Amino acid sequence: MSAEETEGTTRTRLVAAMADSLQRRGFHGVGLAELLELASAPKGVLYHHFPGGKTELAVAAIQAAVGSLIRGFARLLAEHGEPVGVLRAWFALAQQRLEKSGFERGCPLATVALESGSQDEDLRRALADGFDEVRRWLAAMLAQAGVAPATARRLALLIVSSYEGALLQARVAGSVKPVADTAAMLVELVREEVAARPATSATPRAR
Amino acid sequence: MSAEETEGTTRTRLVAAMADSLQRRGFHGVGLAELLELASAPKGVLYHHFPGGKTELAVAAIQAAVGSLIRGFARLLAEHGEPVGVLRAWFALAQQRLEKSGFERGCPLATVALESGSQDEDLRRALADGFDEVRRWLAAMLAQAGVAPATARRLALLIVSSYEGALLQARVAGSVKPVADTAAMLVELVREEVAARPATSATPRAR
Repeated sequence: MSAEETEGTTRTRLVAAMADSLQRRGFHGVGLAELLELASAPKGVLYHHFPGGKTELAVAAIQAAVGSLIRGFARLLAEHGEPVGVLRAWFALAQQRLEKSGFERGCPLATVALESGSQDEDLRRALADGFDEVRRWLAAMLAQAGVAPATARRLALLIVSSYEGALLQARVAGSVKPVADTAAMLVELVREEVAARPATSATPRAR
Repeated sequence: MSAEETEGTTRTRLVAAMADSLQRRGFHGVGLAELLELASAPKGVLYHHFPGGKTELAVAAIQAAVGSLIRGFARLLAEHGEPVGVLRAWFALAQQRLEKSGFERGCPLATVALESGSQDEDLRRALADGFDEVRRWLAAMLAQAGVAPATARRLALLIVSSYEGALLQARVAGSVKPVADTAAMLVELVREEVAARPATSATPRAR
């Protein structure tokens, strides 16, 4: 393995360790020593890869988590071909992740988002952009399935809002029930909107 | 002022300072020295009132926040007389609080709920009970307005889920738009359910 490859994997391990820690306990709960141990990285290597230190690493972890989520959505859409299947699968994966991790792993963005009062602008911006990207992807998927663009945007927001709040309640309850029940309601709403398409669009869509 | 009253107000100030800090930055972000300063409390007084230290104070702050929320709901219901008005007013208050605090103050339970991975069982239990109490209150309000009990429970969960997720997105966006738009969708859903009452119950309700 070349020096460059080693560098690459150390960086990747640091980002993955930060993403994992952020979703378990947030930015304030992450200790740098623990993080380096998690990433099997020697001391000093953090500032080599991330001159901005803990905050710069957290920004990279947030961007990596959003990228991975969007790629996951795309895979689910390729598999299911329509929004209801994608939503069902996404919420089911969240439930599995919660259960497997003893209700520690929810959304990698949420905890750090709520601590944002004491954080710097780079971190806040990365989170805002991340949520924006997720909402826009979901809205585009719904619009592509025939939901009117304004409704698609509002539904995408409701999906993200209730996903985050359901995960939060599941974590403290130590039960996936809030996620399962929230998913069932959202699936029903989305199904109604998608089904209403032929009735609401009198003229064929140009696509 | 008697010694007892001074004790009482010091305790109250500590609880209020903890509740405020929890919603701004979570349990890990709260420093004890800063907390004592916020509460204008001398060092040493914390363990006098809360032998269990920071965790016991956080549990008291969570319980106080839930109690205050439920009393607020009851006031809104007395004022508006029906669920749609209560929801509108609740989400409007959240928007005001976000804006006034520079998007630092959202829900006092949410941040600490997401850090729960590294916290003890007392804190998790206080949060779980708190969310449960809020969901049950909302479900009872909806059922009283004629929504079928099972639907009322599901709607109450969706309201709490999307409230939490909307506040989270508003904080990072530095905008109340996610809260306003989520509220509009929920109000529409609740209005439909409440309006559907006469159509869905063929026999008069015994009440």
